[in-house]
Amino acid sequence: MEIVSTIAAARERRSADREAGRSVALVPTMGYLHEGHLSLVRRAREIGDSVWVSVFVNPAQFGPGEDLERYPRDLERDAALLEAEGVDVVFAPPAEDMYPRPSVVTIRFSGLEDRLCGATRPGHFSGVGLVVAKLFNIVDPAVAVFGQKDAQQALLIRRLAAELDFPVQIEVSPTVREADGLAMSSRNVYLSAAERQAAPVLHRALVAAHDAVAEGENDPLVVEGQMREMIEAEPLASLEYAVCVGLEDLERPSRIDRTVLLATAVRFGSTRLIDNLLVER
Amino acid sequence: MEIVSTIAAARERRSADREAGRSVALVPTMGYLHEGHLSLVRRAREIGDSVWVSVFVNPAQFGPGEDLERYPRDLERDAALLEAEGVDVVFAPPAEDMYPRPSVVTIRFSGLEDRLCGATRPGHFSGVGLVVAKLFNIVDPAVAVFGQKDAQQALLIRRLAAELDFPVQIEVSPTVREADGLAMSSRNVYLSAAERQAAPVLHRALVAAHDAVAEGENDPLVVEGQMREMIEAEPLASLEYAVCVGLEDLERPSRIDRTVLLATAVRFGSTRLIDNLLVER
Repeated sequence: MEIVSTIAAARERRSADREAGRSVALVPTMGYLHEGHLSLVRRAREIGDSVWVSVFVNPAQFGPGEDLERYPRDLERDAALLEAEGVDVVFAPPAEDMYPRPSVVTIRFSGLEDRLCGATRPGHFSGVGLVVAKLFNIVDPAVAVFGQKDAQQALLIRRLAAELDFPVQIEVSPTVREADGLAMSSRNVYLSAAERQAAPVLHRALVAAHDAVAEGENDPLVVEGQMREMIEAEPLASLEYAVCVGLEDLERPSRIDRTVLLATAVRFGSTRLIDNLLVER
Repeated sequence: MEIVSTIAAARERRSADREAGRSVALVPTMGYLHEGHLSLVRRAREIGDSVWVSVFVNPAQFGPGEDLERYPRDLERDAALLEAEGVDVVFAPPAEDMYPRPSVVTIRFSGLEDRLCGATRPGHFSGVGLVVAKLFNIVDPAVAVFGQKDAQQALLIRRLAAELDFPVQIEVSPTVREADGLAMSSRNVYLSAAERQAAPVLHRALVAAHDAVAEGENDPLVVEGQMREMIEAEPLASLEYAVCVGLEDLERPSRIDRTVLLATAVRFGSTRLIDNLLVER
């Protein structure tokens, strides 16, 4: 496994893959890896000849007052985990290499960036779009693998790739959970013991809503109310949103007559967790 | 010379260039070619093994009420001119192929897109950025050649390529002019005989301003006033802007102590012409 830490070195290594005729599968991450990330890496391994993982805590997707500074980092541990998974290249650039001067160019997602997580994280998805476009241009992957846990991100990245004609296939892999249902997240380490114990309420509320829809509930407002009620019953949980929306437009349908995304964001103290489930129709 | 008219066919042809180890130089155009475009093609010929010219009147860069519908088109004539220049591939897709559904993704240029031409053409540079990003991803050129006549566009495309890490070198070629100084433009065909006779006033005003700066004038307001006066003295001309600005930020400096861009936009009836000159310091 090779660790490259500059854009120039990444391009050089990419050329070697190209000359050898190896297709690249990329897993973009912010590091501090858990089983969720490793499941994306295993998926990438199945698809690409050469598996690249980027480890970059992207300042552009953090807002003022968010957790950029304290976001957990451990490149040494990450590299050991990735080596064990048979990863070929880790791309871990410093922020100065990715953003040598303030950006003039911004990427916007009209009508989609302000919903769900975007409502409380203005500029977040612009920052995600920017770094993903950069990574696509640096690594030139045939496939890029993202997690379904970040459902809105996955939707926007699909649109980015399709509308800008990036020659890349976007794969979205299922959420990996702890035994009690809590979705894996690098931010779970922030939780106190009591918060950790309360955190599975996201998944429980989603499962209850999923079951209600699967059993015939057609009114998204009823479904949302049910999720809200369950989450608000948890004293340590502070609900940000709990929605039942269309997969493509992230808008609440008047009735549930097609596949919907159930999605929630909840704060435990200063830690913000998200989770979601799809209900196929 | 091959004419490809779908993104899929362009990608296939590009693969053939890649397998043969040919580097691609791209000249993006909206067609209705003149000597200015052909000078870009000749520059591309010097740099790339395979010269691609895109011919696409990009709806995304026209605002409501602008001249999208009447913009001059003649692909047959363009193809003959390009064949004579030894071009390898013409990429001329229909709008439905480039924009199969309304775009969610937009590209913005904070602080630069609202100046000069952007002030009266809101959304114009977003549309330019979108189509250029798409072309870069479809054609994957090693070099792309743009005209200095569209100075603000050239600046923004440089930033787009640099900040999104597109693996492309941006070349900017000098403006080509008629004998009387009028910058070549596809829109010159709109001019009536009287307007055509009046149109060189743009160049005359720029040259006079250039000479004033070269002879020591340091106050950008004086220089701008001089350009405005000359252009407003022409009865058929309706001035949109005449500015003396920094090359990178498009802002008027307090005094001219570095290279500046002199730029102007003028309407003759419903025809809008632009031109510019650099003054090196």
